Amino acid sequence: MRIAIDAMGGDHAPGEIIAGALEARDVLGSEEELVLIGDEAIINMHLNRLGATTGEFRIFHAPDVIGMDESPVEALRRKKKSSIAIMAHAASHRQVDAVLSAGNTGACVAACQLRMRNLTGVLRPGIAVVFPTVSGPVTICDVGANIACRPINLYQYAVMSSVYASNMLNIENPRVGLMNIGEEDAKGNELVKKTREFLKSDPKINYIGNLEGRDIFQGKCDVVVCEGFLGNVILKMTESLVDMIFTAIGSEMKSQNLLMAWWFKKIAKDVLKKYDYHEYGGALLLGVNGVSVICHGSSKARTIKNAILACKKYADKQINETIVERLSQTTVKANGQ
Amino acid sequence: MRIAIDAMGGDHAPGEIIAGALEARDVLGSEEELVLIGDEAIINMHLNRLGATTGEFRIFHAPDVIGMDESPVEALRRKKKSSIAIMAHAASHRQVDAVLSAGNTGACVAACQLRMRNLTGVLRPGIAVVFPTVSGPVTICDVGANIACRPINLYQYAVMSSVYASNMLNIENPRVGLMNIGEEDAKGNELVKKTREFLKSDPKINYIGNLEGRDIFQGKCDVVVCEGFLGNVILKMTESLVDMIFTAIGSEMKSQNLLMAWWFKKIAKDVLKKYDYHEYGGALLLGVNGVSVICHGSSKARTIKNAILACKKYADKQINETIVERLSQTTVKANGQ
Repeated sequence: MRIAIDAMGGDHAPGEIIAGALEARDVLGSEEELVLIGDEAIINMHLNRLGATTGEFRIFHAPDVIGMDESPVEALRRKKKSSIAIMAHAASHRQVDAVLSAGNTGACVAACQLRMRNLTGVLRPGIAVVFPTVSGPVTICDVGANIACRPINLYQYAVMSSVYASNMLNIENPRVGLMNIGEEDAKGNELVKKTREFLKSDPKINYIGNLEGRDIFQGKCDVVVCEGFLGNVILKMTESLVDMIFTAIGSEMKSQNLLMAWWFKKIAKDVLKKYDYHEYGGALLLGVNGVSVICHGSSKARTIKNAILACKKYADKQINETIVERLSQTTVKANGQ
Repeated sequence: MRIAIDAMGGDHAPGEIIAGALEARDVLGSEEELVLIGDEAIINMHLNRLGATTGEFRIFHAPDVIGMDESPVEALRRKKKSSIAIMAHAASHRQVDAVLSAGNTGACVAACQLRMRNLTGVLRPGIAVVFPTVSGPVTICDVGANIACRPINLYQYAVMSSVYASNMLNIENPRVGLMNIGEEDAKGNELVKKTREFLKSDPKINYIGNLEGRDIFQGKCDVVVCEGFLGNVILKMTESLVDMIFTAIGSEMKSQNLLMAWWFKKIAKDVLKKYDYHEYGGALLLGVNGVSVICHGSSKARTIKNAILACKKYADKQINETIVERLSQTTVKANGQ
């Protein structure tokens, strides 16, 4: 398997990205080829610094970089030789089987959607992320690939995320919930009402019904299906709310007892480690023909290593093949929905 | 001013509700009349128990109650003599100026929307809640009154929430943000794109641009405008995520040091008190002709008292009058949007 890594993308690129690739290299077999994409001279400099042997990695030279804050579509149009553009191009020409970036998320998703074809039967790819909760990991799809969502898209997200959760997270017969504003069947807008019909009609989906916002973190389900606008807000909000709460507790402790505050820093670290999404490596762009992993901009070497290993697991478990098979068997058809 | 209180609604009804009404009674002037709605015998029993003087409250007898988990629309159809139905009926016949319930939220909102007319110029009411954040209170509208939202509705939520935040929370020229999936102008679906045009064209709105999920808790804005489906998920999710984090920290502390864990309970209480939405009494159904406050189901006496005082402040500050005036002056017109 050939896994391409955007060496230039992310807050800690290229140093941490390349270090992560090296860590992954140490545990992968020889049948896995890691391809670093970025400025060749810079990559080689970092490889030397990290003590890597020449030839351990293949390098695809990309002289340009898309910045974290650039407008995705415009940047992709202008920077044809950026690491993300060249990475997606390599995937579309089957020069690599998997791609991975901690760079500009919008640009990475757009490039993969544009360049990599969809899996047979998939109408729109969706981004799946794993939320670690007290009751175990919860997969949410879509968190922003598709903001013009139709019922058939949501249905396909349910199928793809189920296959993902059962294979990547070892959850048997994952419980799938549909994000809504209330639990009753009659609740919701047209999108969720029609999606519910689709979900109910597929016996292979373990559909448990509507979810409310509070259910994500309460162990009620393993997979949450929602449209991308909503999922995107959920994802970003969760991160910042967690930050705010730890900050609030930290300052309260500081104002009451400095020793306790110092000790709380350790506790906070331990808790965050327990519910650390970096463990999962990154988000998956489900539905493209290949493997596309989007890492958090703050990713360090460990996350990149985990993301690379996730690419291999994803391929080994034949998740794409299973998705195609499941979609070929379903009786649910779009009919304009 | 006549304020009606649903004595039967909420997890701690009627005891805590009636106790809250008594607390409010103690600080309100004689020109405010409090009306308790519910089973007269039960209300009187509680009033006696709490040592209230007979005649201190007017009572509207309502023999029936809508349960917290009942389907709102169906329950309203069946239970014409429920406290919520009778409360909304009283408001629609101008027997009371404000209504307040900690009961079935869906039923309360539906009854108020159905019975109370809209303010002149308002097309759809929206629910505004105040989130206490590290950087101060943030008002979010709509959190679930309207799940078929048009740009003109979102624009009106911005107008109403601005008036609300400046008068109820004393925020001068509140900064209004539009919930979106990215900061750039070009981001988002048709709903937010058109809404943005509306917001930009009204010089009286201090529109600061798009928000991402992470911005709610980071002091970037005072008012967040979003459609009700999204707002509902945000609201419910926030509550349960806060719970989860405190639980996670608590168990980690317990596993490391029992004394610290005990001490953390106190800290947790102090923090939650600082960011306590009960302070704000409840959510406002903005846009109805009158005052409609929806309290959390878990409300105890203090929250009910604060909610009753909020009704008075809302009327004193002439928020509805200001909203009507602002909407009469705007050049933004629906034109089918």
